Amino acid sequence: MLRRICHAAAGPRVSGSAKLVLAARSLTYTPRTRDVQFLYEEVFHMYDHYGKLAGNGGAAAENAVTKDLMDALLEESSKLATQTLFPLYESSDSEGCKLTNGTVITPKGFKEAYKAYVEGGWVGINAPEAYGGQNLPFSVGFTTRELLATANWSLFMYPGLSQGACHTLLAWASDELKDMYLPKLVSGEWNGTMCLTEPHCGTDLGQVKTKAEPLDGGKSYRLTGTKIFISSGDHDLVDNIVHIVLARLPNSKPSTKGLSLFLVPRNLVKPDGTLEEKKNVECTSLEKKMGIKGSATCQLSFDNSVGYLIGKENAGMEEMFTFMNGARLGCATEGVCHAELAFQNGLRYARERRSMRALSGSKEPEKVADPIIHHANVRQNLLFAKAVAEGGRALILDVSRMLDLHAAAANPEAAQELDNEIGFYTPIAKACLTEWGVEAASRSLQVWGGHGYINGNGMEQILRDSRIATVYEGTTGVQAMDFIGRKVLSTKRGNQAQKFGQRVNKLARAHFFCSGPLGSYSRQLWLMQKQWRIATTKIGLMAQKNHDAVGAASEDFLMYSGYLILGYYWLRMAEVAQKKVSAKQDPDGFYQTKLDTCEFVFTRVLARADAHYKIMLEPPALCAYKEENWDIQ
Amino acid sequence: MLRRICHAAAGPRVSGSAKLVLAARSLTYTPRTRDVQFLYEEVFHMYDHYGKLAGNGGAAAENAVTKDLMDALLEESSKLATQTLFPLYESSDSEGCKLTNGTVITPKGFKEAYKAYVEGGWVGINAPEAYGGQNLPFSVGFTTRELLATANWSLFMYPGLSQGACHTLLAWASDELKDMYLPKLVSGEWNGTMCLTEPHCGTDLGQVKTKAEPLDGGKSYRLTGTKIFISSGDHDLVDNIVHIVLARLPNSKPSTKGLSLFLVPRNLVKPDGTLEEKKNVECTSLEKKMGIKGSATCQLSFDNSVGYLIGKENAGMEEMFTFMNGARLGCATEGVCHAELAFQNGLRYARERRSMRALSGSKEPEKVADPIIHHANVRQNLLFAKAVAEGGRALILDVSRMLDLHAAAANPEAAQELDNEIGFYTPIAKACLTEWGVEAASRSLQVWGGHGYINGNGMEQILRDSRIATVYEGTTGVQAMDFIGRKVLSTKRGNQAQKFGQRVNKLARAHFFCSGPLGSYSRQLWLMQKQWRIATTKIGLMAQKNHDAVGAASEDFLMYSGYLILGYYWLRMAEVAQKKVSAKQDPDGFYQTKLDTCEFVFTRVLARADAHYKIMLEPPALCAYKEENWDIQ
Repeated sequence: MLRRICHAAAGPRVSGSAKLVLAARSLTYTPRTRDVQFLYEEVFHMYDHYGKLAGNGGAAAENAVTKDLMDALLEESSKLATQTLFPLYESSDSEGCKLTNGTVITPKGFKEAYKAYVEGGWVGINAPEAYGGQNLPFSVGFTTRELLATANWSLFMYPGLSQGACHTLLAWASDELKDMYLPKLVSGEWNGTMCLTEPHCGTDLGQVKTKAEPLDGGKSYRLTGTKIFISSGDHDLVDNIVHIVLARLPNSKPSTKGLSLFLVPRNLVKPDGTLEEKKNVECTSLEKKMGIKGSATCQLSFDNSVGYLIGKENAGMEEMFTFMNGARLGCATEGVCHAELAFQNGLRYARERRSMRALSGSKEPEKVADPIIHHANVRQNLLFAKAVAEGGRALILDVSRMLDLHAAAANPEAAQELDNEIGFYTPIAKACLTEWGVEAASRSLQVWGGHGYINGNGMEQILRDSRIATVYEGTTGVQAMDFIGRKVLSTKRGNQAQKFGQRVNKLARAHFFCSGPLGSYSRQLWLMQKQWRIATTKIGLMAQKNHDAVGAASEDFLMYSGYLILGYYWLRMAEVAQKKVSAKQDPDGFYQTKLDTCEFVFTRVLARADAHYKIMLEPPALCAYKEENWDIQ
Repeated sequence: MLRRICHAAAGPRVSGSAKLVLAARSLTYTPRTRDVQFLYEEVFHMYDHYGKLAGNGGAAAENAVTKDLMDALLEESSKLATQTLFPLYESSDSEGCKLTNGTVITPKGFKEAYKAYVEGGWVGINAPEAYGGQNLPFSVGFTTRELLATANWSLFMYPGLSQGACHTLLAWASDELKDMYLPKLVSGEWNGTMCLTEPHCGTDLGQVKTKAEPLDGGKSYRLTGTKIFISSGDHDLVDNIVHIVLARLPNSKPSTKGLSLFLVPRNLVKPDGTLEEKKNVECTSLEKKMGIKGSATCQLSFDNSVGYLIGKENAGMEEMFTFMNGARLGCATEGVCHAELAFQNGLRYARERRSMRALSGSKEPEKVADPIIHHANVRQNLLFAKAVAEGGRALILDVSRMLDLHAAAANPEAAQELDNEIGFYTPIAKACLTEWGVEAASRSLQVWGGHGYINGNGMEQILRDSRIATVYEGTTGVQAMDFIGRKVLSTKRGNQAQKFGQRVNKLARAHFFCSGPLGSYSRQLWLMQKQWRIATTKIGLMAQKNHDAVGAASEDFLMYSGYLILGYYWLRMAEVAQKKVSAKQDPDGFYQTKLDTCEFVFTRVLARADAHYKIMLEPPALCAYKEENWDIQ
């Protein structure tokens, strides 16, 4: 099963020298394999985890993911990222996609790059062997995807969404549909999409109008309606596109409870496996966007298009959330990707560009000026991006570790409990990492000064690209409502807030009385957690009097939770790093840098939570303001 | 003198109905004349101010700006803004500028719009009558320019920078140069620029390499060097462009003390007043940028270009700061402009778009869903933009009121004191209003969800356009260092921090013991001011031990100061509004809306200052981190 990837890994060693230096002003990118190894081996003990998975109804023990395999995967994904995907990052922005004769033409080089992605076996990395997949744990997929996606988010969107389609079919489709569509989706020969949004509704899917009328007693359906903002809705990378579509059966309830999920192939598959030439779904328009211009965002017209029911009638929302939850974690990764790329290039510029002198005395008096990296303000911008990228990487690895456990759960109760736990982290990861990703991109652009604002220098592209992430798969506001409403105040999913609080406490208690920095961070984190629990209760009480209190507090509550979690993962990393530094086992300063960045987080980032705390406890007066008067000239 | 504008004002009344409704998804813009009148008449009592100016060495009393005149100016600028400038806002972004045969071609319609701007007398609004100007106070210029610039910032850049060139010449040039260049600059027939940045230096102007060699014993000079990022550096709106250039005389000190200021016309002026056909300065490249694409950003090549010394040898930095300080306040206005445009269009969408139900119960149960304006999260985004636009408008009017007083100062000491005071507000206004402007644009885009990310819907353009403002004329980091270093900790410019503190205290004390919201805001503001003063002392003490403390604290100190000032102006507005509401003199809810927005500011914005406070008192440890290790993979 792993042969394909392992074989490829025998190529030239890349991970240690994959730095791609383009023309002076172009971006560079080095996959953070060492940081991943630190998380895998020292923080989360992933090989023990994989060993237990293998013994726990997962893969056979001899097939457990080992360090050798993982290192090979890191090396191989780094090579693909830097040699194939990253060189197209900037050109795909200036070129964009084009709609020609109803087909989307992707930027130059995307076909070849997609082919390399597919041939590496990356699309099916987490899919079952039965359908041609590699059957590797989710965490391995998330980790390697981050390295790949950082190189070219737009390009990554095509296989990325397709994996979501696979998981949805795996979870809900009939064996017939699975056998027919999964092998080609898993191999990457075909591509999948998620079709929810319509011109008049996105978040409020209860308004979906697309209709599905049964044919042949329900063997197939005819769908009619318009879907917009469909990523990879049409393109020239594959022969066929498999749309996963939310639509409404006749006489269904006029709410989300009346929605069903359908599989609608762009080109119908004939009994012999070949494709109908006429398109079953038409791409009628291609959006021009602020960023991720290499990713095709399509308007699709379903006009009596033939489709097949996935799962049960009127259960479309629940089924679609298999896709959506994965997509939300994918978006969270995007925050890490853009923070990382922005950080690396902000850092590079800050080391090269010379301006003024360091306040504490010139660092290079023989030169015309000091590199700007010596200015505190520049450091703050860069360290913020670094803190988000590395802290976010830890958070995502931990959540994907839970996804591994969920997949291998021994019984439905254990699976449900893990699902609840993952559901708790998902909106925080999605919203906070993407908000911080945009901020990291913006602050790294700022390091470049005027040069950051210029097309072609790359920094403004990272910012434009990053900006979508707080919007799609549910805006930050939507994540905030999901988090406080469904994941914290509701009692339906176990008391995840309490469980998380206990987790923080356990970590904090381990260092609570230490005299060094770890002790001080632990006490700070313990206090944050305490305040957070109190705030939860207070908001709940306010909400009993006025439901608006939940909405008014939601985004600040979410961001507070995000800073708490960021602090938690940084402390996890710092406790490992501190041991190494204390033992003088830090020849290249890797661990000291972790401690420095952790100090930055605890002294100069987490203080923001104070503001969110204060704001989220304010009564929801703003909901009663008369907005009719807001635009009086 | 005022005839030209007043005459034009006799046209159809616009200010009450200037709302320009374009195609469904296009942006709309209504100049906020009512809000300006509120500030002029009720908050800052500008007509008393103008009366005093007129009696104080300024214009004759019968020429003082009256409400009639100001209302005519507001009406006229609104008309120009909405009928001529705004319709080109979106088209100029998609079209951009083009460099053809060494000349920049501006977007379609810019020539006609610039002509209308010039014919309205707006370029010379603050210039002396002797040079063809309107001689109106600076505050009138700033106010009307905000209404005009909101409609089309890119277009506004051309006359806007030219005004800066005029003021620099007025302040420092010889009568000969003034007589030769000012009439055409003031009329708008020619255009002016500011040429500082070179490829290797922007902020650190001591590195400027452009050389100026004297000819004819110093009657003229020959300049050689390359300047980049020159806004309006070349274009087709005018016959000639007058560059104000920072360059280095032979044997000058290799620092900013060796820089002199020169006037270098693009086309040399022959003795008969006609222009040499051959260009004296070439535009060698045109930048493609993230935004403000209608504004030409040029690379200029000076190759033995003939120029003339402005002012004294080696005094170029001081002289250039006449231009720069004005430009920084201009940038501050940009923050208000983009916040206002973003707010208006976010609000419009939030009223139209329907999604889900208000948490406190459906507002329009008969419809498919409630307008999203009823969601607290959406309100927060919009109110933030509103608070920045209106608070920023008040701040800028107040600073431009000081500029009026400065221009009319009875003696050099009074002028210096006002200059110090203006210098205190300038970096805060520039940095904070532009940072908030970007945030307002981003949060208003967020209200539009996915539609906000699409080219052509306008919201992403506002965000892209707004992003330059925190960079040019000195980044936020540079403003922060200027503010804390030169304006607060240095004792050279009088104790402006103390003076400002007293101003806040005076306002706070007036309502300190009130039981209502004004009392609570006053106490909050008083406490913020107190903390701010304490922090100033603490940072000063830290800096005595470690100079890095100043840099490490600078941006947080600046932002704290910004929130303090935002609170100050909102309280100024609220005290007026409260009187009207209490007296039930608020038929359309204008004053209640001010009180609501003020409540939003005090309950949900100013809390951010707490985070900045905590961070700015942290020791500057981050300056000692070893950045060599930051990129260990």
